Amino acid sequence: MTTPTLTVDGPRLWRSLMDLAAIGAYDDERTGLRGVNRLALTDADAAGRRRVVAWMEEAGLTVRVDRMGNIYGRREGTDPTAAAVLTGSHIDSVATAGAFDGCLGVLGGIEAVRTLNERGIRTRRPIEVAVFTEEEGVRFGTDMLGSAVAAGRLTLEYAHALTDRDGRTLGGELARTGFDGTEDVRLAPPHAYVECHIEQGPVLAGSGVEIGVVTGVQGISWQEITVHGRAAHAGTTPTRLRADAGLAAAHIIVRLRELVDSGEYGDLRATVGHLIVHPDLTNIVPARAELTVDLRNPDDAQMARAEEALAAFLRELEESGPGLSVTTRRMAKTAHVPFDEGVQKVIAQAADDHGLEHISLLSGAGHDAQEIAALCPTAMIFVRGEYDGISHNPREYSTPEACAHGVDVLATTLLRLAGQD
Amino acid sequence: MTTPTLTVDGPRLWRSLMDLAAIGAYDDERTGLRGVNRLALTDADAAGRRRVVAWMEEAGLTVRVDRMGNIYGRREGTDPTAAAVLTGSHIDSVATAGAFDGCLGVLGGIEAVRTLNERGIRTRRPIEVAVFTEEEGVRFGTDMLGSAVAAGRLTLEYAHALTDRDGRTLGGELARTGFDGTEDVRLAPPHAYVECHIEQGPVLAGSGVEIGVVTGVQGISWQEITVHGRAAHAGTTPTRLRADAGLAAAHIIVRLRELVDSGEYGDLRATVGHLIVHPDLTNIVPARAELTVDLRNPDDAQMARAEEALAAFLRELEESGPGLSVTTRRMAKTAHVPFDEGVQKVIAQAADDHGLEHISLLSGAGHDAQEIAALCPTAMIFVRGEYDGISHNPREYSTPEACAHGVDVLATTLLRLAGQD
Repeated sequence: MTTPTLTVDGPRLWRSLMDLAAIGAYDDERTGLRGVNRLALTDADAAGRRRVVAWMEEAGLTVRVDRMGNIYGRREGTDPTAAAVLTGSHIDSVATAGAFDGCLGVLGGIEAVRTLNERGIRTRRPIEVAVFTEEEGVRFGTDMLGSAVAAGRLTLEYAHALTDRDGRTLGGELARTGFDGTEDVRLAPPHAYVECHIEQGPVLAGSGVEIGVVTGVQGISWQEITVHGRAAHAGTTPTRLRADAGLAAAHIIVRLRELVDSGEYGDLRATVGHLIVHPDLTNIVPARAELTVDLRNPDDAQMARAEEALAAFLRELEESGPGLSVTTRRMAKTAHVPFDEGVQKVIAQAADDHGLEHISLLSGAGHDAQEIAALCPTAMIFVRGEYDGISHNPREYSTPEACAHGVDVLATTLLRLAGQD
Repeated sequence: MTTPTLTVDGPRLWRSLMDLAAIGAYDDERTGLRGVNRLALTDADAAGRRRVVAWMEEAGLTVRVDRMGNIYGRREGTDPTAAAVLTGSHIDSVATAGAFDGCLGVLGGIEAVRTLNERGIRTRRPIEVAVFTEEEGVRFGTDMLGSAVAAGRLTLEYAHALTDRDGRTLGGELARTGFDGTEDVRLAPPHAYVECHIEQGPVLAGSGVEIGVVTGVQGISWQEITVHGRAAHAGTTPTRLRADAGLAAAHIIVRLRELVDSGEYGDLRATVGHLIVHPDLTNIVPARAELTVDLRNPDDAQMARAEEALAAFLRELEESGPGLSVTTRRMAKTAHVPFDEGVQKVIAQAADDHGLEHISLLSGAGHDAQEIAALCPTAMIFVRGEYDGISHNPREYSTPEACAHGVDVLATTLLRLAGQD
């Protein structure tokens, strides 16, 4: 027997999204649009969290906060011994964000609960809605942080000691914002985890479909490369005597694209998003360059080969001339995370039952779901973004219809996983 | 008849250099050395100026300050109608400087006057020692600024309106530091100008010679290039859909070195010293990159060809894919400035008469002399720097002997140009 579908209140969901987006809003000069700047555990994020907690309580959820500031709102089930079905995401943002990234999953979970309440539906298993801390990693440097600690991949001590650019610790900011909860941070394994999130990419838009069933998250490798050269006067130093750290950095960037274009490393993506040179003066050959390399690959073996090709190129650079040396620092590394096929099937069936077309796709971005996948069967629902799925940008936009449809699928999936009583 | 040589007090010159270097001194963490940070018209620069004015007055010079803050110390000649022989340089520094850049020319000029005084020598022409404002261009963005206004290439209004990074105007900073003089900024053409300066390059060190007779200053072209691309998520955006401004900047940097290495543009040097990307985040494809291109060439026609080759490459980049556009802004452009052969001969003869080996060489860096050359016969004396002539760095160092020898040549040259009475 299949339980009926659960259709949420789309306009109410949309109002929540817009209300939350007003917290931390700013006028983005580059786009002329209203953006969101709600870095983790800033005053804006704390205000957003208080709003979400209030919505949870209005929806009858019992709220608890753990020692990482992760927030869980619980709707009890009829079986007191059953493990909960978990949903959620994050509400922290990058500095130039839109309204949807993360928020759709959190507010979608609350909207699903509101709909269950209105329909008087009781489930056998409890349903919990989670808000994970510092998913973006922009402020404290490690992404998926709250969920990684909840899943046991990172320790609480590590996370609390992380500092932002101004030297403030995450632990201190938890206390300052009042989100230093007392609940054990290690999450008891849920029955399943389902996260609804905007795609942040162009695949759904390119396919003309609103709903994606996510098969997993591709592997991510982040490293910071520092090239040490030698400062020299631009006018007086003959070219052959230079050890130009900026030029070496440029060669690395160009080479990375060559690795991608070669096709020899599978579906590799490579991005150098951060790049600075010192002393950064017009007439001084850079003494030092610092860049980050973000590699993505759905195939862990291909990823390893790409990393080795990069390392070999760095050795070549060092050997290319005297005075150049290269150091690397591992920032993050996650393997390809395949999602649970059973949960994917429940999602796909829910979409079918709502009459929504869907495709299966791999996530290019990292998500809290890849951490929670270590604890329980997990999968994600992707919602189409307009403008090629642009994200981390005030232009980020999913239509009210697409958001509502994604959360319809989420609500029905949660209901079926939790079991209607 | 050749006048005798004039040998200065080397240890006294050295003490002046070290005393001035103590003003604006800082502990440089990178080198572990004591450096100098005396950006133009800061409190440190003003303190340095007051010290130099005091030394000038102790040496009997009559000091005047013009509306650009340029300082002139005048030693009268016996012919009241004769144009002065001018020497000098600057005492403002880059943020990470040594003790010698500019200061050697100013303090060398004062030391020459002290020596003339001690020897009771009167000259037919007056001798003036100049301190030019904002030679480095680091604080207000235009180098050789004080001498350029004195020579009439730039206007006083332009210079006064320039702002530093904090929005403070040069005019305001002149008033704040008390160096808003009342003398006409347009310099009456001197009889000749001679500037003693450290080489800031490796040629003298490579030749095993302490003294260089400078034949001119190579052409300098500075431009700022801004590449506009499109921000995109590193994980989700397929490579073919990217307009990566950072990658385009890297291609520009690599191409510039190719132009140099091709040998097709004469003795071209190319430096990208400033490079930033936006939004400068690990997992965002850069939407914008900004870089500066510093080109040097002793041949103006070759320089023009190199600039055209760069411009053609920028057009290629724009056409290479949708979403990329490039804008350029001219920051500075000076043609090759040949120095006066007559003054060069006086310098070479003075070196010979002091028993000092010398070679002729072109200046790779810009100097106040290239501005004053528009007003009168001009040449420069270069003094060898250790460590391949490293400069704009606390490691900048010329030996006490090399400094004294350079200023011996300067003093004798000034005496001969001014005419012993």
